Amino acid sequence: MKATKTIAPRYAETDQMGVIHHATYLLYFEDARTAYLDALGIPYREVEARGFMSPVVSMEVNYGASLVYGKDVRVEVWVSKVTPAKVAYSYAVYQDGRTPDGRPCATATSVHCLVDRDGFKPVSMKRALPDLYQRYRQAAETGD
Amino acid sequence: MKATKTIAPRYAETDQMGVIHHATYLLYFEDARTAYLDALGIPYREVEARGFMSPVVSMEVNYGASLVYGKDVRVEVWVSKVTPAKVAYSYAVYQDGRTPDGRPCATATSVHCLVDRDGFKPVSMKRALPDLYQRYRQAAETGD
Amino acid sequence: MKATKTIAPRYAETDQMGVIHHATYLLYFEDARTAYLDALGIPYREVEARGFMSPVVSMEVNYGASLVYGKDVRVEVWVSKVTPAKVAYSYAVYQDGRTPDGRPCATATSVHCLVDRDGFKPVSMKRALPDLYQRYRQAAETGD
Amino acid sequence: MKATKTIAPRYAETDQMGVIHHATYLLYFEDARTAYLDALGIPYREVEARGFMSPVVSMEVNYGASLVYGKDVRVEVWVSKVTPAKVAYSYAVYQDGRTPDGRPCATATSVHCLVDRDGFKPVSMKRALPDLYQRYRQAAETGD
Repeated sequence: MKATKTIAPRYAETDQMGVIHHATYLLYFEDARTAYLDALGIPYREVEARGFMSPVVSMEVNYGASLVYGKDVRVEVWVSKVTPAKVAYSYAVYQDGRTPDGRPCATATSVHCLVDRDGFKPVSMKRALPDLYQRYRQAAETGD
Repeated sequence: MKATKTIAPRYAETDQMGVIHHATYLLYFEDARTAYLDALGIPYREVEARGFMSPVVSMEVNYGASLVYGKDVRVEVWVSKVTPAKVAYSYAVYQDGRTPDGRPCATATSVHCLVDRDGFKPVSMKRALPDLYQRYRQAAETGD
Repeated sequence: MKATKTIAPRYAETDQMGVIHHATYLLYFEDARTAYLDALGIPYREVEARGFMSPVVSMEVNYGASLVYGKDVRVEVWVSKVTPAKVAYSYAVYQDGRTPDGRPCATATSVHCLVDRDGFKPVSMKRALPDLYQRYRQAAETGD
Repeated sequence: MKATKTIAPRYAETDQMGVIHHATYLLYFEDARTAYLDALGIPYREVEARGFMSPVVSMEVNYGASLVYGKDVRVEVWVSKVTPAKVAYSYAVYQDGRTPDGRPCATATSVHCLVDRDGFKPVSMKRALPDLYQRYRQAAETGD
């Protein structure tokens, strides 16, 4: 499964280079994960409502063509790996006219674990949120 | 009492106008309040540790000369009004060479109340944090 | 004329009070102005493409009920005053279930001028962008 | 050469997990690079004043122990690789009491190229800014 999130860059997200600041991409990826979980039927707010949180373990971004203000950005997102303890998301970022041949402007991968809300202790996603784990597994199989 | 907070603008805080984005000023004011409370001897983290939070009730900013990357910004901050329930902070923002005659680049006032952390219910600062209230009163009296 | 902008709060916009940080509202207002100018037929990127920028002169926000993650925020925006040199926008912010009686969670007003891109010198909007000025006038007349 | 940048986390940088949001780390790394270039004697604003910019090519972050509000964060930064076209910075992030044995809370590496300000075209750092290139080389040799 792939989800696509369309985002209108904010003026505040530009910097004096005239492009979207590189830290902003992480907010776009978070928007994309939110859309993905919505599509999966288990919104992130529900993960927290059930007593868990899903912090970022690692993040890797390759920046290519820069993004600009005034045109929508499209982030494609899919689950690239699932283990009982961790999930990896991958991203491809597009903006019309910024790259030749429709290639992505940027790509990224992030890894997330699951912790309990009170103690911030890592828990097994497979055991704590078995429905989310199963849907991640299915989504990853029908991946890109 | 007045406190002065010196801040190095971040590149990410600039926008494609080539100046510091106007929403960033609110972060600078927060930095200034933090410095003020440190100087008062009751850091904000202690306010929260005692079970309270101090949300913003209102904020008014007058933007004059813009701020730029590459030079320190100085925020002068003082308590301009105290009541048992609310405190008002005032701010004057400076950056060398941005205004004639040493006038501030921007001025602002913000009003804050006190709520309990669990229920977000307003409480009397005078009763809940009498030491903070007293120091605010003294600081306001010796204000400019 | 009134425009309404619907915004999904970002997780990054929450703070450890568990609510949307007060500086974020200024980004929501900017989103709302963008939607308003789109509805007016002169997108902000076109204002810059024509050689002008529209910095914020002043901003006044009244924060009432806090905003939370996980539900859409609606910002109503309208032009409350127009002069040849300046335009004032007003805002009302809503989020379901956060206030009784459908009252806004927050209200605000911001004032903007027009400057030329190269020198950051104030110009008359009436003369520099007469079509924008006229549309602002008409929109203000059919205001709230 | 190593530089150390001390940063007071902002309240706005926390999220409702009660920790510093993961995108904020990229701002801390930028602060650290700024400090590094200052120590090297060629501040980033001078790079831009000479007609160049240094965008991020890639970023890799490993998040371990989370960072919290109310205590200083220390970012150690050093140049881990230099080629005529690119420079890699590495980072180790510390906050007292957040990890056993003084281990870093997070580590990261970022790669940067050099482009001309007007056309955003990649240029050779070795040719365009030979003094910066030489200092990077020396700094990398006396690295961690």
